[in-house]
Amino acid sequence: MKFSIERAALLDAVSQAQAVVERRNTIPILANVLMEADADGVSFKATDLDIEVIDKATAQVERPGGTTVSAVLFHEIVRKLPDGALVQISEDQAQGRLDITAGRAHFSLATLAREDFPVMASSDYDANFSCKAGVLRRLFDKTRFAISTEETRYYLNGVYMHVAEGEGGRKFRAVATDGHRLARVDAELPSGAEEMPGVIVPRKTVDQVRKLLSDDDAEIAVSVSETKIRFATPQITLTSKVIDGTFPDYARVIPTGNTRELKVDAKDFAKAVDRVATVSSERSRAVKLTLDEDRLTLSVNAPDSGNAEEELAVAYGDEKLEIGFNAKYLQEIAAQVDVEMATFLFNNSGDPALMREGDDLSAIYVVMPMRV
Amino acid sequence: MKFSIERAALLDAVSQAQAVVERRNTIPILANVLMEADADGVSFKATDLDIEVIDKATAQVERPGGTTVSAVLFHEIVRKLPDGALVQISEDQAQGRLDITAGRAHFSLATLAREDFPVMASSDYDANFSCKAGVLRRLFDKTRFAISTEETRYYLNGVYMHVAEGEGGRKFRAVATDGHRLARVDAELPSGAEEMPGVIVPRKTVDQVRKLLSDDDAEIAVSVSETKIRFATPQITLTSKVIDGTFPDYARVIPTGNTRELKVDAKDFAKAVDRVATVSSERSRAVKLTLDEDRLTLSVNAPDSGNAEEELAVAYGDEKLEIGFNAKYLQEIAAQVDVEMATFLFNNSGDPALMREGDDLSAIYVVMPMRV
Repeated sequence: MKFSIERAALLDAVSQAQAVVERRNTIPILANVLMEADADGVSFKATDLDIEVIDKATAQVERPGGTTVSAVLFHEIVRKLPDGALVQISEDQAQGRLDITAGRAHFSLATLAREDFPVMASSDYDANFSCKAGVLRRLFDKTRFAISTEETRYYLNGVYMHVAEGEGGRKFRAVATDGHRLARVDAELPSGAEEMPGVIVPRKTVDQVRKLLSDDDAEIAVSVSETKIRFATPQITLTSKVIDGTFPDYARVIPTGNTRELKVDAKDFAKAVDRVATVSSERSRAVKLTLDEDRLTLSVNAPDSGNAEEELAVAYGDEKLEIGFNAKYLQEIAAQVDVEMATFLFNNSGDPALMREGDDLSAIYVVMPMRV
Repeated sequence: MKFSIERAALLDAVSQAQAVVERRNTIPILANVLMEADADGVSFKATDLDIEVIDKATAQVERPGGTTVSAVLFHEIVRKLPDGALVQISEDQAQGRLDITAGRAHFSLATLAREDFPVMASSDYDANFSCKAGVLRRLFDKTRFAISTEETRYYLNGVYMHVAEGEGGRKFRAVATDGHRLARVDAELPSGAEEMPGVIVPRKTVDQVRKLLSDDDAEIAVSVSETKIRFATPQITLTSKVIDGTFPDYARVIPTGNTRELKVDAKDFAKAVDRVATVSSERSRAVKLTLDEDRLTLSVNAPDSGNAEEELAVAYGDEKLEIGFNAKYLQEIAAQVDVEMATFLFNNSGDPALMREGDDLSAIYVVMPMRV
């Protein structure tokens, strides 16, 4: 294998690939990136056995072939090469080395045989469709904060992507919850997605896919089977196993009888929560909301350090209500609000609250109360 | 005590003070900041028993007095208040609370009695002089990287500030070393500093003083005794104990017989060292320099991962030389060079090397070689 490639294109391709490589590996080849060159250019592949990323780049290929080298080391070297450099890469099969030359710098890295690089079993997908990057990004961004980190509840360690009956018909829906809060976000159902099975996309996959979604209008090719999900741009293909489990019936968690409506400026609300929570101890972080005629009082009482109180002018017309929440949860849902106002719907002190972004019905958030 | 103050002025004053507070304290009051208000304004004092910072700010004082509250908590609250807010602070002595009000936010913090706040013993200083902030910054910035972190060699855990015979007369000199490298930087001796005793300024003090030195032309009042050093601006006074120990006779470490001169672009050199060091294992990080007629070759050989080599065009006219160094040490001394060229002076492979910034004789750096 021998090819030359622009440093910028190489860095781009290798960055995406090395990001899926786990830093601690018991299987040495999993620390490596597989590079393969043929008439069409070069590709870089990395995997942690759950996620596989293949990144293609344009290169001047002199001799096709392929080998694997340490992903982290290769990425570090490319990153440190001068901007604009032309990088020459060639495999020295006899020595088992990969030679990298740029200007007057020369590197020779240990390789492992490409034949030993794990191949992810290919799948038949039940649904293949195209979706705008901006749409996928919204689905993931507004739900990922609620993903559970409890490993024992592995079926909550991801975003549940599925087709569901929503406002005005069938929707492409993302749901995540950790039992304390829940986020449910709908998008238009892409044509071809109707037959998609519901799948739980692992947190790491969500984080990796997120990097492919910077350009709102880019079309992402999505393929889904019972066991895998694939996201592809013309350069990058990311294939991931999905979580083998059953996502709980989340609909039962979403309150339907909440009628006490509070409208509050989302940014002001988040800042005020942050301020009053300062005095609370690390452990509890409970904030009490006291609602009264167009007035919301946030308060925290921490016996050791002190107490804090802040009043906000809001729109609220129902009877007086006191209800407590974890400050972090309130801040995280308020941070999802893209419009000016957050709309909260309460029932009683012991019942979960519901939040919407203004009058938008396509995204709802549920948060469980705390005794204060 | 009761006063009102602009949030920006308050934040500034409290930031400086809280920075010296240690995060983990066995003595509760050391976690607190002492605030005192009188006709002249307010002052904020914090200490870790080795360093004491007093920061003055302008305020509208209604009732003089003083108390102490958690420095971290108070700083966090002030930081989170809206920009431009007017902050009202008053002590509720009966309740043992400090009340903070800004707009519709209200906080009440637990206090500890001001009488219990530790007072640093006052000193007679042997020398009082004034020094430009830019001069002090240069002395500290160019030496602090070489401060030892080994606690057993406590007498190396700081910068040795003293008066010494330098190029063209008596100088104000800063020296730091960890036994592997050494930095020695001279400045003009400020008038009044002649009688200053040599003192070892602890690393934490160097870091804290550094924050007072952002404006090059500001005059810093410096006072030095055998046991203490004080730096003062009109707003801030920082008093620190110095390290009770004897700084070793560093002059013996500085080679005088090094005649093999290498001139190299400092930035190119640092980048090339960084690149070739990528392949070396975390532990050793040894880089070999091979010097030959106007050519410097940097190389690293790491049996596990691979090897790297880079050539640089340099000015070198002496006989061929091979010498090894710790890559990090080379990068750190090269980073001190403010001019284009670094001038290295070598003797033999086993001898320490000397570096200067171009032809400037006021700062020299020594680095011990490594067997490669």
